[in-house]
Amino acid sequence: MTSFSVGLLGHGTVGSAFARLLEERAENIALTVGRRPELAGVLTRSRGDFAEILTRADLVVELMGGIEPAREYVLRSLNAGKHVVTANKQLLSQHGEELYAAAQEAQVQLRFEASVAGVVPVVRVLQETLAVTRIERLHGIVNGTTNFILSEMARTGATYEKALGQAQELGYAEADPTEDVSGKDAAAKMAILARLAFGTPVHLDQVPYEGIEHITPHDLEYAAELNLALKLLGTAERVDGGLSVRVHPVFLYPGHPLSAVSGPFNAVTVESPAFTEITMSGPGAGGAQTATAVLGDVVTAMIPAPPQVDWTYDLAVVSDVTSAFYLHLEVDDQPGVLGQIAQVLGLQGISVKSVVQKGMDDQARLLMVVHPVLESRFFAALELIRRLGFVRAAPRAIRVIEEEFV
Amino acid sequence: MTSFSVGLLGHGTVGSAFARLLEERAENIALTVGRRPELAGVLTRSRGDFAEILTRADLVVELMGGIEPAREYVLRSLNAGKHVVTANKQLLSQHGEELYAAAQEAQVQLRFEASVAGVVPVVRVLQETLAVTRIERLHGIVNGTTNFILSEMARTGATYEKALGQAQELGYAEADPTEDVSGKDAAAKMAILARLAFGTPVHLDQVPYEGIEHITPHDLEYAAELNLALKLLGTAERVDGGLSVRVHPVFLYPGHPLSAVSGPFNAVTVESPAFTEITMSGPGAGGAQTATAVLGDVVTAMIPAPPQVDWTYDLAVVSDVTSAFYLHLEVDDQPGVLGQIAQVLGLQGISVKSVVQKGMDDQARLLMVVHPVLESRFFAALELIRRLGFVRAAPRAIRVIEEEFV
Repeated sequence: MTSFSVGLLGHGTVGSAFARLLEERAENIALTVGRRPELAGVLTRSRGDFAEILTRADLVVELMGGIEPAREYVLRSLNAGKHVVTANKQLLSQHGEELYAAAQEAQVQLRFEASVAGVVPVVRVLQETLAVTRIERLHGIVNGTTNFILSEMARTGATYEKALGQAQELGYAEADPTEDVSGKDAAAKMAILARLAFGTPVHLDQVPYEGIEHITPHDLEYAAELNLALKLLGTAERVDGGLSVRVHPVFLYPGHPLSAVSGPFNAVTVESPAFTEITMSGPGAGGAQTATAVLGDVVTAMIPAPPQVDWTYDLAVVSDVTSAFYLHLEVDDQPGVLGQIAQVLGLQGISVKSVVQKGMDDQARLLMVVHPVLESRFFAALELIRRLGFVRAAPRAIRVIEEEFV
Repeated sequence: MTSFSVGLLGHGTVGSAFARLLEERAENIALTVGRRPELAGVLTRSRGDFAEILTRADLVVELMGGIEPAREYVLRSLNAGKHVVTANKQLLSQHGEELYAAAQEAQVQLRFEASVAGVVPVVRVLQETLAVTRIERLHGIVNGTTNFILSEMARTGATYEKALGQAQELGYAEADPTEDVSGKDAAAKMAILARLAFGTPVHLDQVPYEGIEHITPHDLEYAAELNLALKLLGTAERVDGGLSVRVHPVFLYPGHPLSAVSGPFNAVTVESPAFTEITMSGPGAGGAQTATAVLGDVVTAMIPAPPQVDWTYDLAVVSDVTSAFYLHLEVDDQPGVLGQIAQVLGLQGISVKSVVQKGMDDQARLLMVVHPVLESRFFAALELIRRLGFVRAAPRAIRVIEEEFV
C-alpha cells in the first residue's frame, strides 16, 4: 500500500493530540482510503526544518497559530502544490483571500474545519451540503469560553470576574482571556463562516464585535425573570442586498435553537427559506476534539477534490441593521420620567413592547423591551436618553432575538 | 460549458420540488462545479420510459419510494455506471447491501442524505467528518410525525388520538399513519445510520421497535412533574463488543441535547470519546427540505468521488441491552404491596431509584424509576409483577436516559 506523508507544523496541545490520533487511526484510514498516512516531520520552535518537511510532505497540517510565520509556511506549502489543513482562525479571517487564491491557483485543497467550532462540522456542511443553497442567515455561538462564563453567571448568580476565574481554573479560559471575552475570537470565526455561507470575502476588520466584560448579574437575573437566555451571538445575514456580520451579547427567547446551548459548547444555526433551519452543536474546543476535526480534513484531502465553490458573489458588507433591544435604565423616581423616555424613543420611531418599573427608595429601575428598529436609530435615542437629567447611570442595552421557531 | 444529465424517477411532492429546485439552482451549480445540470427525463406512473432515461442520464435520482420497481431501477442504474441519489429509506434498510455492493463494483456513487432526517446532514457527517472516528453511540429523533404528536401531547395534555388527528390536519401525518407511529419508519432510518456509524450491515429486521400508540396523557403528566421529555428515540450503540440498534419511547432528562427538540423536527446526537458529542437538528421532512438534501447529493456526485469507506467491520447485532426504566403500576391500596414489588425487583437484581405513591380511593398508583438493568431481567420482573393479585392493570414501562451531558 502506498503511503501519504503529513508534515506537521506546531506541536502544542492540538499538535501533539493530532500526532497521537494520526498514529492511532492510521490503520483504519489505510483501510478506508487505500493509503497509509504517516508523519513526514514535525516543526516546533526548537526543532525541525520547514523546507525539509515541505519536500517530503503530501499535505501540511498547520497548528502553530498566529499570523507569522504560519502565513508564510501555508503559502509556501500551497504554492509547492501541497494540500494544507489548518485550524488557524486568525490567519483565515485576516489573510483568507490570499490563501484561497493560492490554493485555487495550485489546484490543491485548503481545509479548515477545526478553525470554527472544533469538531462541529459546520465548515463542511456549508461547503458541501449547502454549497448551492441560498442561505438567509447564520447564527453562531462560536466561543466556548464566553458561553461557559455566561452559563455559569446564569446558573449561580456569580459576577463576571468570578465566573471568569472559574473558567480559568477549569482550563476553559486562558490566563489572558482578552481575545475570547472581547468577542474578537468569535468575530474571526464569523468572518470565516460568513465567507462560506455567502460567498463574499469578509475580513475580520469588517466584523464589529462587543464582548461580555460588561455583563452584570443583574442582566442575567432579569433574563431569568423573562425566561431569556443570554448568549454571545455571532450573526451573519443578508440585509438590503448586502451582508451584515457581527458579534454581540444577545438575549434569546426560549425555543430558539441556540438558547439551550450551555457550558463550553459551540453551536451554529443556518437559516434558509429552502429548509427553515439546521442547527449543529458540540464541544467547541479542546485538543482531542480539534485534532479529530483536523484528522477528518486530512482524510478528505487524501481523496480526490471536493466541491470547489467559485466565489462569484460579492455582497456589500453593511453595518447598520435592525434589532430588538432590552433597555435597562436607572432613573430618579419622579413623575414624568417614563413619559419623557417614551417621547425620545417615539421621535426615533422606536416602539416599546414591554416595560417593568421597579422602585428602590428615591430611585427607580426601568426595564424595557423595544420592537426591532434600525440600530443607528436606537443608539441615537440612547445617547439622548443618557443626557436626560434624571438618568442616574449609563443606560444598558442588550439585543434581543424573539423570532419564534417551528 | 458541458452539461450533466439527471434522470428523475418519481414526480410526487419531493420529485416535483426537486425538479423545480434543480432548474432554479442550475446556473449557480454551473458556476460552482463547472457543469450545468439538466433533467434528462422524468419517469412517473403514467409517462416516461426508464430505459430511455437511463441511456441519457449521467446520474439517476430515485424518488419513487417503495421497494419495487425502485430496487430494480436503482440496481440497473448502478450496473450501467450511473451515479444514484435516493431518499428511499425502506429500500436502503432492506436491500442496502446489494445496492452498496453494486455501487462499489461499478465505481459510482450511491448517495442518500435525504433518506434520514431530511436536510440535516447526518449522513454526510458520518461518511466524511467522522469516517475514521470510533463512534460509541448514536441517538436519533428521526421521525417528525411522532415527535410532533408527543410534543403536542406534552404541550396541551391532549390524548394520542387527538394529537394524531391534529398532525394529520397539519400534514405532519399521513391518512394511514401506521408506519410512523409504530416506530417502523424510525427503525429503517436507524438501520441506515447504524451501518454508516459502525460499518456493520444492519437490516431493518434486526432493529426491534416500539411505537407511541400506547402513550397516555398520564405518562406525559408525570414526565412534566419529573421534568422529563418523552421522545421516540432511536439508539445505535456498541454493547459488549457487538452492536445494538433499537427504537423506543424514552424519557430524556433535561440537559440531554435531544430533550429540547420539539415539533416535527429531527435531530441526531453522535457520541465518541474523541469529541464527547455532536448534535445536528433541523426539519425532518417536507418536499422542499428533502429536495434540498437530494440536490446537495447531486452536486457532490458531480465532483470526483468522496471517501469510500471499506466495510471491514462486522459487529454482531445484539438484542439485550441495559436501560433505566420508569414503571407505572395501578395496585390495591393495602399493606405490603410496595414490599412485595420491591422483592420481585430485588430478586432480578433491579434497584429502585425513586418511588412516588399516589392514593386514589381503595387504589394506589406507584410511579417508580429503577436504575439501569439488563432489559431481559427487567421484563422478566415485569411479567412476575403483572401476575401479582393486587396489580389492577397491566404495568406500564418506559425507558429513561439520565446521563448528564456537560
